[in-house]
Amino acid sequence: MALSARSQASSRIREFQLIRALKERYGTTHSSIVRGIGDDAAVIASGQDRRHLLTTDLLAEGIHFDLRTAAFGDIGFRAATANLSDIAAMGGTPKHLLVSLAMPRDATGRQVKQLYDGMMAACRPHRVRLIGGDTSASRGGWFINITLVGSPSSSRILFRSGARPGDHLYVTGTLGDSRAGLELLQRPRGTADAPQSLTPGHRRFLIQRHLRPTARIREGRWLSMIPWATSAIDISDGLSGDIRHLCAESRVGALIELSALPISSACREYASATKRDAVTMALAGGEDYELLFTVPARQRIRFERASAQHRVQVTRIGTITAARDGLRLALPNGRQRPLPVSSYEHFRPNR
Amino acid sequence: MALSARSQASSRIREFQLIRALKERYGTTHSSIVRGIGDDAAVIASGQDRRHLLTTDLLAEGIHFDLRTAAFGDIGFRAATANLSDIAAMGGTPKHLLVSLAMPRDATGRQVKQLYDGMMAACRPHRVRLIGGDTSASRGGWFINITLVGSPSSSRILFRSGARPGDHLYVTGTLGDSRAGLELLQRPRGTADAPQSLTPGHRRFLIQRHLRPTARIREGRWLSMIPWATSAIDISDGLSGDIRHLCAESRVGALIELSALPISSACREYASATKRDAVTMALAGGEDYELLFTVPARQRIRFERASAQHRVQVTRIGTITAARDGLRLALPNGRQRPLPVSSYEHFRPNR
Repeated sequence: MALSARSQASSRIREFQLIRALKERYGTTHSSIVRGIGDDAAVIASGQDRRHLLTTDLLAEGIHFDLRTAAFGDIGFRAATANLSDIAAMGGTPKHLLVSLAMPRDATGRQVKQLYDGMMAACRPHRVRLIGGDTSASRGGWFINITLVGSPSSSRILFRSGARPGDHLYVTGTLGDSRAGLELLQRPRGTADAPQSLTPGHRRFLIQRHLRPTARIREGRWLSMIPWATSAIDISDGLSGDIRHLCAESRVGALIELSALPISSACREYASATKRDAVTMALAGGEDYELLFTVPARQRIRFERASAQHRVQVTRIGTITAARDGLRLALPNGRQRPLPVSSYEHFRPNR
Repeated sequence: MALSARSQASSRIREFQLIRALKERYGTTHSSIVRGIGDDAAVIASGQDRRHLLTTDLLAEGIHFDLRTAAFGDIGFRAATANLSDIAAMGGTPKHLLVSLAMPRDATGRQVKQLYDGMMAACRPHRVRLIGGDTSASRGGWFINITLVGSPSSSRILFRSGARPGDHLYVTGTLGDSRAGLELLQRPRGTADAPQSLTPGHRRFLIQRHLRPTARIREGRWLSMIPWATSAIDISDGLSGDIRHLCAESRVGALIELSALPISSACREYASATKRDAVTMALAGGEDYELLFTVPARQRIRFERASAQHRVQVTRIGTITAARDGLRLALPNGRQRPLPVSSYEHFRPNR
C-alpha cells in the first residue's frame, strides 16, 4: 500500500512514477499525518500520543490472482496477508478490517463465503476484526479491496526511510518460494513440463507458501521493540523491486550479496529440477511477504544474538551504501554489477 | 459503506441479504468496536475517549459510472462525495483519504490526474488529506475504492439504529435531482427524446446535482451537535431504499407522506417535460446524498426553529411507526399503500 506499485511487472515502473507524481501533487504535511504517501502504511496521529496505521490494497482478477490456480479461500487469505504484511513492515499490530468486493453477475454466495472465510483465517491468529466494507456488482471480474487499521506495537514505528550507509541489510525467512509455488500451480503434476524430480513434501511446501503466505507480524513487532532496526519494508513485489523502494525513501544505495540470499531447500530443488537459477528466483520472485530491514553495522552481533534468542529467523544479505553507488549485486565470483531494472520484468510474476 | 448495498438495482436485495449474512457470520463485539458492520461508517475507539469513523466505497465502471456520461474529474468528485456523505450521516468530520485505483492498460496519466483532481476538489472544502492508497492494472475497466477516516464532530455520533416510533422523519435539500441530471446526460440536448421545454438554468442545475453532488457535512455536524436527532443515514441508493436500511437497523416502520417530499422546481419541470411523476423520481432516484434523519415529535417546533436559524434546509416527510406497520406511503388522496419493494428496480438507476 501507501500507493505502492502492485500490478503486472510491465507497468510497475510507470506506476512507481505515477505514485511519485501523486505524492508531489497531493502529499501534504499536517500535524495529524505522521507518515503519508510512500510507505507500507500511512500513520496518523490523534491526541497527544495515539497513532494509527492504515493500509489499503486492491487485488484484481487476472492481475493479482487467477481463478484457475487459486481457490476463493486462498485468494481471500492472500489478500488479507498482503495487508497484514504492510502493518508488519511498520512494526504494527493489526486490528480492524474493511473489505470492498466487486463481483461478477454469476458470483455465488458460496464463493463469497469462501473468500471471507479465507480472509478471516489469515486474520484470526492476530485477532483482527471485520468492521465494515462495501459490495458491488462488476462487469470485469472479481476485485477485492482491503483496508486494514493497526496500532504501533511500541513507541517506535519502522519506516522505509531510516536506512543509513553502512547499515547491514537483513531479511526474514526464505525468498523465492512463493514464485516457485505459483509456477507449480501453473504446471500441474502429470503434465509434460511439470518438474518430475521434486519431492511431494517440497512441492506441498512451495504451493503452501504461495497460497497461504505468512505475514511476519511477530517479527515486525519484535523489530519495533528492539532499539536497532533503522528501516523496514515488506517483500511483496520481490526483493529486487522492494529494495528499490526502501533505498529511494532512505536516499541510499545498497549492495546485495547474491550468495547470501536465504533460499529453502525446496526452492533450490525446484530450480534445479526446472534448470533455473534459484538465486535469480529469490531476487525477483514476488509475494514472499518476508521483511527486509536494516541494522547499523556496530549492532550486528548484539542484534543477531537477540534474534536467535527470540527465534526470529533473519539472514544478512548485504549492506546499505551511499546513494551515488546505486543498487548493486555482489556476485559469487567477487565481481559486482548493477541490479538490473528489468529483473522483475524478466521474471514477470503473474499478478 | 459499512457493507451497504451499492450496485445495480436488480442485485441490491441479494446484496442486502449478503450483508446480513456477513454480519451474522463475522460481526464481532469488542471494546474497540463502537459500531461494526451495518451503518454508514464503522466507529472504533482508541484510548478512553478517542473515536474514529471509517467508511469505504468501491465504484466500478459500467455499474456506478459511465465514461460516456461523466468526465474523469466528475467521477472522482462523485466517488469522494459518496464517502464524505457516509461520514456526514454519522455527524462526523472527514479527515484522511486512502485511494485504490485499478485502471485498464490504455489508461493515461492525464485521466488519472483528472480523477484525483476531482476527488481532491470534493475534499478540499473539508480539508481532507490524501495519505495513501494503491494502484493496480485492471482487465475489466476502471475501479475506484476510497477509504475515508473521520472523527466525531461532537460527543454524539448519529447511528441508523436510534429511530423510535413517533419520531418525525426529515430530509435535507431536495430529492430526485441527481436522477434527472443523469437522464439528461443520457439524452443529450438536440437528440429526439431530449426534453425541449426545460430551461437551460434548470438543465445545468440538474446535471450539476448529478456530476458534482454536495456531501452534507455541515448539516450532519450540526445534527450531531444539537441534542434532538435520534438517527440518520445518507440517501445514496434513493429514499425508498435507504429508509429501508434505517428502519431495519432501528427495528421500526415508517410512513412517508408523498405530498411532502421536497422536489426542486428544476426536477418538477423535468418530470413534466418528460411526462413523468416527480414524486416517484424523488422516492426512487439515487445519489442525491441528502441526509435522512429522525427527531422526536415533541421536539419538532424547537428543532425546526433551530434549523431555520442555522440555515439548514430540512423538510419533514413522514413519521416513524412500529415495526409491525412496515414501510408505507401516505398518498395525496389520503389513502396508504406499502412502499413497493420493487420501486428501485422500477427506476433502475444506471449504476
